[in-house]
Amino acid sequence: MLTFLAPVGSVIALLFAVYLTQQVRKAEEGTEKMQQISQAVRRGANAYLKRQYTGVAIFFAVMFVVLFIMAGCGFLTYFVPFAFVTGGFFSGLSGFIGMRIATSANARTANAAGKSLNAGLRVAFSAGGVMGFVVVGLGLLDISFWFFFLKWFYANPANLGLSANVSAAALESAQVQAITSAMLTFGMGASSMALFARVGGGIFTKAADVGADLVGKVEVGIPEDDPRNPAVIADNVGDNVGDVAGMGADLYESYVGSIISTAALAVAAGYGFKGVFIPMAMAAIGILASIIGSFFVHTEEGASQKNLLTALRRGTWISAVIIAVTAFPLIWFGLGSDHIGLYAAILSGLVAGILIGIFTEYFTSDTYNPLKKLAESSQTGAATIIINGMSLGMKSTAAPVVIVGISILVSYFASGGAQAYDNGLYGIGLSAVGMLSTLGITLATDAYGPVADNAGGIAEMAGLDASVRERTDALDSLGNTTAATGKGFAIGSAALTALALIASYISEVKVRDPHFAFNLNITSPAVLVGLFVGAALPFMFAALTMAAVGKSAQSIVLEVRRQFREIKGLLEGKAEPDYETCVDLCTRAAQKQMIAPALMAVIVPIVVGLLLGVNGVCGMLAGATASGFTLAVMMANAGGAWDNAKKYIEAGNYGGKGSDCHKAAVVGDTVGDPFKDTSGPSINILIKLLSMVSIVFSGLIMSFHLL
Amino acid sequence: MLTFLAPVGSVIALLFAVYLTQQVRKAEEGTEKMQQISQAVRRGANAYLKRQYTGVAIFFAVMFVVLFIMAGCGFLTYFVPFAFVTGGFFSGLSGFIGMRIATSANARTANAAGKSLNAGLRVAFSAGGVMGFVVVGLGLLDISFWFFFLKWFYANPANLGLSANVSAAALESAQVQAITSAMLTFGMGASSMALFARVGGGIFTKAADVGADLVGKVEVGIPEDDPRNPAVIADNVGDNVGDVAGMGADLYESYVGSIISTAALAVAAGYGFKGVFIPMAMAAIGILASIIGSFFVHTEEGASQKNLLTALRRGTWISAVIIAVTAFPLIWFGLGSDHIGLYAAILSGLVAGILIGIFTEYFTSDTYNPLKKLAESSQTGAATIIINGMSLGMKSTAAPVVIVGISILVSYFASGGAQAYDNGLYGIGLSAVGMLSTLGITLATDAYGPVADNAGGIAEMAGLDASVRERTDALDSLGNTTAATGKGFAIGSAALTALALIASYISEVKVRDPHFAFNLNITSPAVLVGLFVGAALPFMFAALTMAAVGKSAQSIVLEVRRQFREIKGLLEGKAEPDYETCVDLCTRAAQKQMIAPALMAVIVPIVVGLLLGVNGVCGMLAGATASGFTLAVMMANAGGAWDNAKKYIEAGNYGGKGSDCHKAAVVGDTVGDPFKDTSGPSINILIKLLSMVSIVFSGLIMSFHLL
Repeated sequence: MLTFLAPVGSVIALLFAVYLTQQVRKAEEGTEKMQQISQAVRRGANAYLKRQYTGVAIFFAVMFVVLFIMAGCGFLTYFVPFAFVTGGFFSGLSGFIGMRIATSANARTANAAGKSLNAGLRVAFSAGGVMGFVVVGLGLLDISFWFFFLKWFYANPANLGLSANVSAAALESAQVQAITSAMLTFGMGASSMALFARVGGGIFTKAADVGADLVGKVEVGIPEDDPRNPAVIADNVGDNVGDVAGMGADLYESYVGSIISTAALAVAAGYGFKGVFIPMAMAAIGILASIIGSFFVHTEEGASQKNLLTALRRGTWISAVIIAVTAFPLIWFGLGSDHIGLYAAILSGLVAGILIGIFTEYFTSDTYNPLKKLAESSQTGAATIIINGMSLGMKSTAAPVVIVGISILVSYFASGGAQAYDNGLYGIGLSAVGMLSTLGITLATDAYGPVADNAGGIAEMAGLDASVRERTDALDSLGNTTAATGKGFAIGSAALTALALIASYISEVKVRDPHFAFNLNITSPAVLVGLFVGAALPFMFAALTMAAVGKSAQSIVLEVRRQFREIKGLLEGKAEPDYETCVDLCTRAAQKQMIAPALMAVIVPIVVGLLLGVNGVCGMLAGATASGFTLAVMMANAGGAWDNAKKYIEAGNYGGKGSDCHKAAVVGDTVGDPFKDTSGPSINILIKLLSMVSIVFSGLIMSFHLL
Repeated sequence: MLTFLAPVGSVIALLFAVYLTQQVRKAEEGTEKMQQISQAVRRGANAYLKRQYTGVAIFFAVMFVVLFIMAGCGFLTYFVPFAFVTGGFFSGLSGFIGMRIATSANARTANAAGKSLNAGLRVAFSAGGVMGFVVVGLGLLDISFWFFFLKWFYANPANLGLSANVSAAALESAQVQAITSAMLTFGMGASSMALFARVGGGIFTKAADVGADLVGKVEVGIPEDDPRNPAVIADNVGDNVGDVAGMGADLYESYVGSIISTAALAVAAGYGFKGVFIPMAMAAIGILASIIGSFFVHTEEGASQKNLLTALRRGTWISAVIIAVTAFPLIWFGLGSDHIGLYAAILSGLVAGILIGIFTEYFTSDTYNPLKKLAESSQTGAATIIINGMSLGMKSTAAPVVIVGISILVSYFASGGAQAYDNGLYGIGLSAVGMLSTLGITLATDAYGPVADNAGGIAEMAGLDASVRERTDALDSLGNTTAATGKGFAIGSAALTALALIASYISEVKVRDPHFAFNLNITSPAVLVGLFVGAALPFMFAALTMAAVGKSAQSIVLEVRRQFREIKGLLEGKAEPDYETCVDLCTRAAQKQMIAPALMAVIVPIVVGLLLGVNGVCGMLAGATASGFTLAVMMANAGGAWDNAKKYIEAGNYGGKGSDCHKAAVVGDTVGDPFKDTSGPSINILIKLLSMVSIVFSGLIMSFHLL
């Protein structure tokens, strides 16, 4: 029965996504003007994704050939290139579907918000839900497909290179090993796609946002989303390709990564097939719990920020409680009471995720002191708000690090790590699965933000009543906090998953050569140098992605300035700006600039492996995970805080809109944009992709290496 | 003969410092007005140091008692508390002397610059030289003193708890172990003092600088160092207490730390007393080479930036060549031709230091592309220059990490690490000594910067001819590049020294319990959690120090604004501002704000040890070293680049002073101030102090720990 939970759960998730899509479609799109704007956004987003997927297809084709050749040389099995491509395909598909529904929900949300806050919330949240359930549904479907296909294939001992009269236990162990090993490549495909989507989408959205704000708000002094701003459509397209499609691909990767990396540890931990089913079943339970939870998200008119947040939270917390209750019988009956410690591992992950969310909110929401003080520092100008925001972001790293640290120790020791090292690692992997089990609903609360943001833009551009904009603003500003929380989940689970992947890497090496002489002592020179290089990688990666945003934004700024200068009557509203050029400029910039960081993630682990060998790679992976975790949290929270500080001032504090404080806060927000939406969230993909590349190329590295 | 090189070298260094002091004193102080200003700066600096040393004395008194009690409990010997205090005393003394000479050289430099560029350079460089040679002289003197004292004391086997008829080899081994172990505490004292001096001085100088700039330059629109600015004296005091006294204490710590951490590895590497002499002798050779090199620093009138840099470089490079030549016979005759591989270790450190300097210059000097592009990005405003500066800083981490990585591998393997692990570690330590061997002269080229900066301030305030200010500006702007180079040295050597200290920690544990069951595998949970916590520590530390600057600067801004508002006729130059209040405000703010970061550095390693045990501490140290190294380089280079981008614009590019580009660049510079002068350089002290605290408290941790 355990076996079929996953495919059944995935189908239910997809059906629920279809149901939510119908809910969204039922709502009306509003006036003709609104429909026109919505169509323009949709067109831009489609054009972007088309171009992106074309570019990415080339990368996948090249990698397919490389992996195929490597399979030919005996370093890999022939499933690997195919698994790699399907992983990428489904990750991209998740983003695409999410984007489709988001672009069709934006005008509908604006229209519904014209009726009531709750109506607006329901449409936006349903659209977010489509995304959430498509991600978990497709993820689990793909995992199930490959699992059952490979299980069928390897049912024949000959396909494993074993004789027909091998013992049942040995056969199972070899089967699970072969299956999970192939599935890790599937994860590498998903991670590669996610990296492109996050980085490319992140560059697009932030270049457009920064470009629109810098000229429109700061220089010309027109409001946000003003239809006279030539970059306004590009900005709204950006929300969809970055914050929706990018995030979808990203969390698809996190979800799938946590499940398969845990499954991959099942052999070493001695759980066999059951050890593979458990994370898959956990995911299925999480889907059902998320569906139930999502029915509890609603609010009444005139709800305050706090009420709205409570409405969203209610759904997540109810789901979490359901998971906490049902995970117990799952472990008890699934693996037996001896292994009930694994329940503590799941619980530690679940609780850690929630705690990280709470601390994230503490540092980024205007109901608490850190954000108020940050806003206050705008009084002494842009420089002090930048200094204090950086400081806030850095300070906010302590809690997640300690929480994840405790979660590692609890899940390790509760799972019997003290007696058997590999069981402890399996527990760590399972805690990541526990943390992400609520993904269906947390992603819904996260993805609803950009939909509301877009709706606000449409309300502004279509000239709707001010009360509509107020309602969409209420929905949107909450989105910053839920987005920061979502990023906390993503990076927290990434740290745990990365550890499971490092362990998988070591098992992979052991499978290839059971007598391999590891020297993973942290003071051995290869490990140390690897550690140094690894710790610097997230910085390099962030440097490349930030520079990409900087460069792209600069080109948009120049274009917007040009339009204001050359198109007569634009500022007076007598002439139409040329939206298309801005969208096209962003698309081309994003395509070009995403190449370097993505290639870095794939090439560096191979180069480090060739130079420093397996031990050096382990050092690099640990270093990148430790420093990347901290850097990603810092960037996400500093960015979120700057954005909310600006919103806090716009709400009328320290002089409100147009004041000097506001100008300073806009600078902070602009710096924060690439922090929170480009570089920060990409780092969590990076640290997993490094491990997956290392795993896939381990055969090559073991044959050729300097140290 | 080897034995006496160190004390003789130290005395020569101090005598040379006396000679240079006389050179400085010979120069005239200029007009009465200049003398008055110089006195005001001196008074402020003295007042600050007096208050700082009083505060620090309390910390040292408490630590003395704690260490004394721990000695009473048998965790330490009774030398430890005394060694701790002397280390702190000499570190503070180095800073104090440097500050004294710098404050007496500022007016003299301004006056000499009135004659010629070369005359100004000679005075400023001589003052910097006093600092450089006092630091190396006192450092080596203190090490020599303790070494000979402890050697005399432990000549009696009974004092080591050994019987009288112990074998000579065993006696030597026990002696060296006991001596170097006590000397490490001396390093902990120096590091603690350095941390206070760097952090406190850094907060003072940047709070004053930011405060003066934000109101004076940005809001009121008066030039830098304008006597009407109430914070102008505080700003000049800051150069002396932060960039001189703070840096002196910092590099004293680096210098001493590298020597004693290498010496502490002598036993495990089997070199005995000779292994202790070698780093000390290397330091002595470096002193002589630096003295010779310093005579080559001179230039002619009308020299370009590039010529001036060449003049300064010439001295360093000649010193480096002398060291490279003489280190060969030192190893050959000192340890024998079998160990000539250690020469490669020294050389790798020396070369690595120079290469780091070159890359630092590439990223921070306006003769190269990165800086030009950064300045160009000011065209699109403050936000883009911040984004691009962060990106530049992050990108600049790759080269130092790779260089240090290669240096680790070369020195490890050349020293025979492949055959005997401990010999390799000794080699890594020696490479740090090699890197810092030119410290006498590199510190002189570094410390001359703030003297020139102060001279410029005095020239401005005393109303000297514009040509004088031009010359001091030429000297000063070079100071940013030499300062960034100096920071590169400090952090590069810190990474190597920290590794030697981690190794010393492990040996210390082994001495206490030869059967201690280490589990330093990088994937074991205690090590991993330690690694995560360690990687986050530099971020937390930077958060605290940056917030400290932010808070202090805010109070200065408000005070300066108050004075401009309340003192009638101030802006018209008819009334005098109240300089004293600003100095006092900075002093109090720095005192208060330096406590939290300093305590963090001492308390966290003890807490981590109590919770995660020895293995967790090793993980923490490695994590802090890896992430701290990268973060420190990033902050130092981003800060240096912003400062120079501003200067580049002030030189007439992109509209020059007062343009919008300039305003954007000032925001960048202001953000960069705490990056490069407070948080960044303190991190290199932090990562060593963490190790030293761990070593001193190892006995306690081994008795009480959770994991």
